[in-house]
Amino acid sequence: MEKKKVKPLHIIILFGSTLVVVLVALLVSTIMERRVESIARLQMVKPIAEWEPRNEVWGENFPREFESYKRTLDTTFRSKYGGSGHIDLLEDCPESVVMWAGYAFAKEYNQARGHAWAVYDVRLSLRTGGVKESPQPATCWSCKTTDFPRMIAQLGAEALYKKKWIEMGSEMVNPIGCQDCHDPKTMNLRITRPALIEALQRRGVKLENITHQEMRSLVCAQCHVEYYFKGEGKYLTFPWDKGFSADSMEAYFDEIAFSDWTHKLSKAKMLKAQHPDYELYMTGIHAKRGVACADCHMPYRVEGGVKYTDHHIRSPLSNIANACQVCHRQSEEELIRDVYERQDRVREVRKIAEQSIAKAHLEAEIAWKNGASEKDMEPILKLIRSAQWRWDWVAAANGVGFHAPVEALRVLSTAIERAEKARGMLAVLFAKMGLPVSPQLPDVSTKEKAQKYIGLNMQALRDDKNELLKTIIPQWDEIAKRRQGTLYKYGEN
Amino acid sequence: MEKKKVKPLHIIILFGSTLVVVLVALLVSTIMERRVESIARLQMVKPIAEWEPRNEVWGENFPREFESYKRTLDTTFRSKYGGSGHIDLLEDCPESVVMWAGYAFAKEYNQARGHAWAVYDVRLSLRTGGVKESPQPATCWSCKTTDFPRMIAQLGAEALYKKKWIEMGSEMVNPIGCQDCHDPKTMNLRITRPALIEALQRRGVKLENITHQEMRSLVCAQCHVEYYFKGEGKYLTFPWDKGFSADSMEAYFDEIAFSDWTHKLSKAKMLKAQHPDYELYMTGIHAKRGVACADCHMPYRVEGGVKYTDHHIRSPLSNIANACQVCHRQSEEELIRDVYERQDRVREVRKIAEQSIAKAHLEAEIAWKNGASEKDMEPILKLIRSAQWRWDWVAAANGVGFHAPVEALRVLSTAIERAEKARGMLAVLFAKMGLPVSPQLPDVSTKEKAQKYIGLNMQALRDDKNELLKTIIPQWDEIAKRRQGTLYKYGEN
Repeated sequence: MEKKKVKPLHIIILFGSTLVVVLVALLVSTIMERRVESIARLQMVKPIAEWEPRNEVWGENFPREFESYKRTLDTTFRSKYGGSGHIDLLEDCPESVVMWAGYAFAKEYNQARGHAWAVYDVRLSLRTGGVKESPQPATCWSCKTTDFPRMIAQLGAEALYKKKWIEMGSEMVNPIGCQDCHDPKTMNLRITRPALIEALQRRGVKLENITHQEMRSLVCAQCHVEYYFKGEGKYLTFPWDKGFSADSMEAYFDEIAFSDWTHKLSKAKMLKAQHPDYELYMTGIHAKRGVACADCHMPYRVEGGVKYTDHHIRSPLSNIANACQVCHRQSEEELIRDVYERQDRVREVRKIAEQSIAKAHLEAEIAWKNGASEKDMEPILKLIRSAQWRWDWVAAANGVGFHAPVEALRVLSTAIERAEKARGMLAVLFAKMGLPVSPQLPDVSTKEKAQKYIGLNMQALRDDKNELLKTIIPQWDEIAKRRQGTLYKYGEN
Repeated sequence: MEKKKVKPLHIIILFGSTLVVVLVALLVSTIMERRVESIARLQMVKPIAEWEPRNEVWGENFPREFESYKRTLDTTFRSKYGGSGHIDLLEDCPESVVMWAGYAFAKEYNQARGHAWAVYDVRLSLRTGGVKESPQPATCWSCKTTDFPRMIAQLGAEALYKKKWIEMGSEMVNPIGCQDCHDPKTMNLRITRPALIEALQRRGVKLENITHQEMRSLVCAQCHVEYYFKGEGKYLTFPWDKGFSADSMEAYFDEIAFSDWTHKLSKAKMLKAQHPDYELYMTGIHAKRGVACADCHMPYRVEGGVKYTDHHIRSPLSNIANACQVCHRQSEEELIRDVYERQDRVREVRKIAEQSIAKAHLEAEIAWKNGASEKDMEPILKLIRSAQWRWDWVAAANGVGFHAPVEALRVLSTAIERAEKARGMLAVLFAKMGLPVSPQLPDVSTKEKAQKYIGLNMQALRDDKNELLKTIIPQWDEIAKRRQGTLYKYGEN
């Protein structure tokens, strides 16, 4: 066979065609798959000890995560109904001062700032008291600090919960951070708070079957949930045995005749919803679609070609491009408007509930003062308890109901129903007593007026707090510094 | 220059490479664009006259559309809370018999069947009466028949509205269909009902600026809206001047002191919401995303390579694949569950409102019977009016609130608030009168018991209706047949 000679023109055609094929194939692959950015491999520059509470020590291995975490100190973001700063929620809703009369939340209730503020802010809060009066148990540290699991490991949960908040101050100095959610060897997500593990087990969940994606919500559910302090030992417990809904948790509390406090004005046995974010979210569409807390509050970022989870945990409203637009194709403006349209409606209905419930408390007080009997008041107080629980189940959760607006509104409707039923019964009582059926109610139209009315001496509370901040807290920091060698200052503390 | 000889091997390489490039390019274009199926061109086999009411005549030109339209006769579909059959809604909610005491809806209220049933069903309804008693104006034909625009063209809207329903029977024989929404020459969508045009103009809408996609909802909004019969002439009017929301329309009605009827038990001046589907939909996410009524209720189909609009107008729940899955990537089962989760919640809150409002009417009746004064009752009746309007604004719309669950629940919350406030005031009245504050209410737990309680003689109504069906209606059909030449029988009529 004759050997054929390959000519330059043919080589050009061959190479040219091949090049086109390769380029088109590249184009196709770019179109067909989202490029998976390389996730930074676990490369630890130095090992991290079990229960290491210092975020900055973890941060030496994970500078990107740590740097983004530190951005939770930023307080400048504002949305229509919230933001990352210390917004005074009692000023925003003076009714809630009345609703919490006799309970610490009436003293002070601010929009929580970012995670890195947690220790600073819990020290600062009037709810944790001062030197003369320190009303809270050590359980209150549970959601504030990475030192909590360390101390559980040291003392056991039961013994730790039994202590007073003020006793543990020198041990609790590192704000919410790395080791709350991560295993220090593998960096896998892990649950460090026994209350969640116990609640899941009581619900029959097999821990070994929990997926990584579920963990990306469950680590948040260690704290962003409804809980209560059970019994004398203040044992931190999630009331999930009958289910996650407002109705199921209320039935749980009713069955064990639990109340957080007795209302100062109405004498109703009240429940305080903590922050059932996880439970409300579970009833919403994002949870249904398998979207985890971290998907919106800690979306992936790419920096220098490395993909990592943004640890600047925050409102997706301040991060629409990474949080929402990964799935939603609408403009930033349109998405924000969509959120506000839901929040506007939840807020409107919440306000109706607030007004009804606050008035019910004030009217119940008048009924008592005019000689109403226990028997008269019993069904009324039950309605008030139920109404406020349902209001609070929505109001205490973050996001003004956005995590599940339909469920939020369902629950708020029942709050209004119960509060107005209670008020109807109170009006009947007034009529029977020969009182005006719509009695003159005190002026509680501002936080200050309401706090004065319910008998709070705010100056004394502030003075006592300042005493704590001046005298005790610097000692805590000194002790902690000696123990740890370093004490990283987050915020202005 | 030497002429180079092209060898067979090189030709194979050249063609092979080119073929690969072409195939890959085709693959890319398939991936990158959705294939746009060819829409059938307007090819009319015979021209259609202006105001031609007979759907079967239009159908000669548009067999696919007409055949699919005829499927609206199918009554077999059932969903959790509805379906395409004649479900008895008064049996489903006996409270509504009480709520409509003194109004025709208490006589009979069935789930509407498909469009092709419209004439048959309006003749059959106890609400349109019989021979002895025929209470409705001709305006009631407006949303039932393609003959209505024909008669407007002949008589003028004002003159037509002034007639009685029974006077126009022989003219109104062709059910809702083609010419309600289409121009017979161009097949473009057009609005044939003056009430919608007038309402849009009063709102400052420039008709020439309405887009085709807007028209794909507006043709539905000719009927699926809130409306009332204005003044002596029963002039069909949409109460949209202040806006579309329940609140805005209520303010409109309050301002003109309009009421549909005076409640037989409570004597409240009541409003009846018709079927504000369009208004509720407008507040929901589908409207926000530019999805028209037709996108879900009349999605495109492809048959024999021809793409056309499915005129089997129906619940998307019976057509998830074409209605929902064009946009939503979830499974049919999951999408249906999502709908039901919203409907379950709306239904639950609606039930609370129904019970509160029905009781308020019954209690108001007791108050009157025991000598309550006009002055005592006035604020109570205002609350009942407002509560029931808000309940009805959601309840009367199709889809159990699915068109906008968040808005539906907002509005229902305010219905509950108002109804329970009214009941509280009634309890006070009872206490002042020395009556039990929770008086024994009559047993209205079934449709039959409730109808008997409000004084309806159902047998007499049915007898009178049968008289109409036996004696008058066959005459209507005879006259129509002479006029039209043919009378196409839809349904069993």
